[in-house]
Amino acid sequence: MIKRLCIIGTGLIGGSLARALRAAGYCEEVIGAGRDAGHLRQAVELGVIDRFETDLARAVDGADMVLVAVPLGAMQDVFATIRGHLAEDAVLTDAGSAKGSVIDAAQAAFGEVPANFVPGHPIAGTERSGVEASFAELYRDRRVILTPLPVTDAAATDRVRAMWEAAGAAVVEMEPAHHDEVLAATSHLPHVLAFALVESLARMHDNQEIFEFAAGGFRDFTRIASSDPLMWRDICLSNSAAVHAMIERFTGDMQVLDAAVQEQDGERILEIFRSAKAARDRFVDK
Amino acid sequence: MIKRLCIIGTGLIGGSLARALRAAGYCEEVIGAGRDAGHLRQAVELGVIDRFETDLARAVDGADMVLVAVPLGAMQDVFATIRGHLAEDAVLTDAGSAKGSVIDAAQAAFGEVPANFVPGHPIAGTERSGVEASFAELYRDRRVILTPLPVTDAAATDRVRAMWEAAGAAVVEMEPAHHDEVLAATSHLPHVLAFALVESLARMHDNQEIFEFAAGGFRDFTRIASSDPLMWRDICLSNSAAVHAMIERFTGDMQVLDAAVQEQDGERILEIFRSAKAARDRFVDK
Repeated sequence: MIKRLCIIGTGLIGGSLARALRAAGYCEEVIGAGRDAGHLRQAVELGVIDRFETDLARAVDGADMVLVAVPLGAMQDVFATIRGHLAEDAVLTDAGSAKGSVIDAAQAAFGEVPANFVPGHPIAGTERSGVEASFAELYRDRRVILTPLPVTDAAATDRVRAMWEAAGAAVVEMEPAHHDEVLAATSHLPHVLAFALVESLARMHDNQEIFEFAAGGFRDFTRIASSDPLMWRDICLSNSAAVHAMIERFTGDMQVLDAAVQEQDGERILEIFRSAKAARDRFVDK
Repeated sequence: MIKRLCIIGTGLIGGSLARALRAAGYCEEVIGAGRDAGHLRQAVELGVIDRFETDLARAVDGADMVLVAVPLGAMQDVFATIRGHLAEDAVLTDAGSAKGSVIDAAQAAFGEVPANFVPGHPIAGTERSGVEASFAELYRDRRVILTPLPVTDAAATDRVRAMWEAAGAAVVEMEPAHHDEVLAATSHLPHVLAFALVESLARMHDNQEIFEFAAGGFRDFTRIASSDPLMWRDICLSNSAAVHAMIERFTGDMQVLDAAVQEQDGERILEIFRSAKAARDRFVDK
C-alpha cells in the first residue's frame, strides 16, 4: 500500500499508473507534479490525481513513493530539484525507456545513486501521449522491468515491484545494460525505422499519391511513427550506443537482402522471409 | 454483370472477390480453378465458388471474365496454359502486386499483350492467406489500380472497372511503371523491412528474451512479417528494380539518422521524427 504517491510527469505513463492504483485501492493520495499547471488541472478534472504542485520540492514532500515519468532528457533536472526534499522512508523510481542514462542522471544529480532509487521501465504505451490518453488498464498483463543496482535497497525494490503488480503488471529484474540492449532491439529500432520510413516517403516528390495508395499493412507498420517525437529523440540520445548498434546490425542485414533482390536470388529471399514469419508467428502471436 | 467468372487461384484475393460479387448479385456463376483439388473443394464447401476445375483450359471455357490471382511467379505458366482457350468475348485480368512483370509474362505467353487483358491490382489484403481467410468486405472502400496499355480494349477496361466497383472498390488507372514505383514505396519496402527486422532479431543469441519484451508497437510494426513468404519472394523478384531503389533510398536515409544518433545531434533527430509524425498524422490517419 502507498499512502502518498507523487507522480512527476502526469502523462500517459504516469496518469495510467495513477488510474490503475486508484482503481485497485492501492494508494490513498496521488499528487501530480510538473511544470504545466493547465495540464495538471486537467489531470485533476479527469480524476487521475487528487491535487497538484508545480514546485517539485513541495510535490515530493511527505510522499512515500515518487515516480518520475518525464522524458529522459529531463530526468537529471528533476532529480537535482527534488534532492534533499524526499521523505526518509520515500522510495524513488522512474519509468524511463533507457536505464543506463537514468542511472547516470541520478548519479550526477545526487552525487551517488541513492539506495532508495529503483530504476524501472514499464513495457507499455501507445502512440498517443498526454494524461487524456491515460487509462487504468494500460499495464494489465504487461511487463515492467526493474534494474536495481548492487547499492539498491532490496526493500525499496520490493515496494516498487508491489506497486506495479497492483497495477496489473508482471515485474522482472534485469541488468541495466542488458535492458538497454533488449529495448534497443524490440522498441527503439522499430520506432526509428517507422519514423525513418515515413520521412523517406514524405520526401518523395509524389508523396501525396504515395500515401494515398498505402493499404492497411502500411497503417499498422507506421502507427508508431505517430509517437511523441521529443520522447523518442530523448530515447535515441539516451541509448545511442545500443540504438546505433542495432541500426548497424539491421542495415547490414538489409544489405544482404538487397543483394539477394538485385541478384534475383529467390532461394535466399525465401529463406529470410520464411524464417521471419516463423519467428513472428512463434514468438509474437503465440 | 458477369455470367461466368473464372477465378484462377482461389485464395484470399480471388475468394474475397467471389464472395463480394456473389453478395452483390453481380455474377451468375463462379468457377474456381487451380492445382489443389482439396483446396478448391474447401472453397465450394465455404460457398465461395460454385464448382471447380483443376484443368485451367477447361476452367476458362465459356467464362466471360477470367481473374488470375496466383503468385507473380506463376503468372506466365497460367497464361500459357489458358492461351487459345478463352472465349471470344472473355476479358482477362489479374491481381498481381507488380504490373510490369505481369505484362511481360502476358507478352511472353501470348506472343503479344492481348487487347482483352487488363492488368490490375487491388490494394487490399491481410497478413493471412488462403480461401478460409477470404471475406466479402475486403475490397469495400479500398483502391484497385488498373494499368491498361495503349493496346488494351477500352471496353475490357470498363468491364474490369465495373467488376471491382461492384465489389465495393474505388478504381483508378495508372501507368504500369508508376504503379510499380508507388507500390514499392508503400507496400513492398515496408514488407521487406518487417521481414528483415524480425529476422534480424530472431538471429540474435537471446532471441527468445528479445521477443518476450516486445510490446504492442512491435506487434503492429511486424504484423506484415506474418505474410506469405512465397508471395513476397515473388513480389521482390518481379519488382526488383523498384524494390532495390526503395531499399537504397531508405538505407541512405537511415545512415543520416544513424549519424545523428552517433553524434548526439538531437536537433536533426527531432526534425526527422517531427516531419515523419506530421506526414503520418496528415496522410495516413486523416
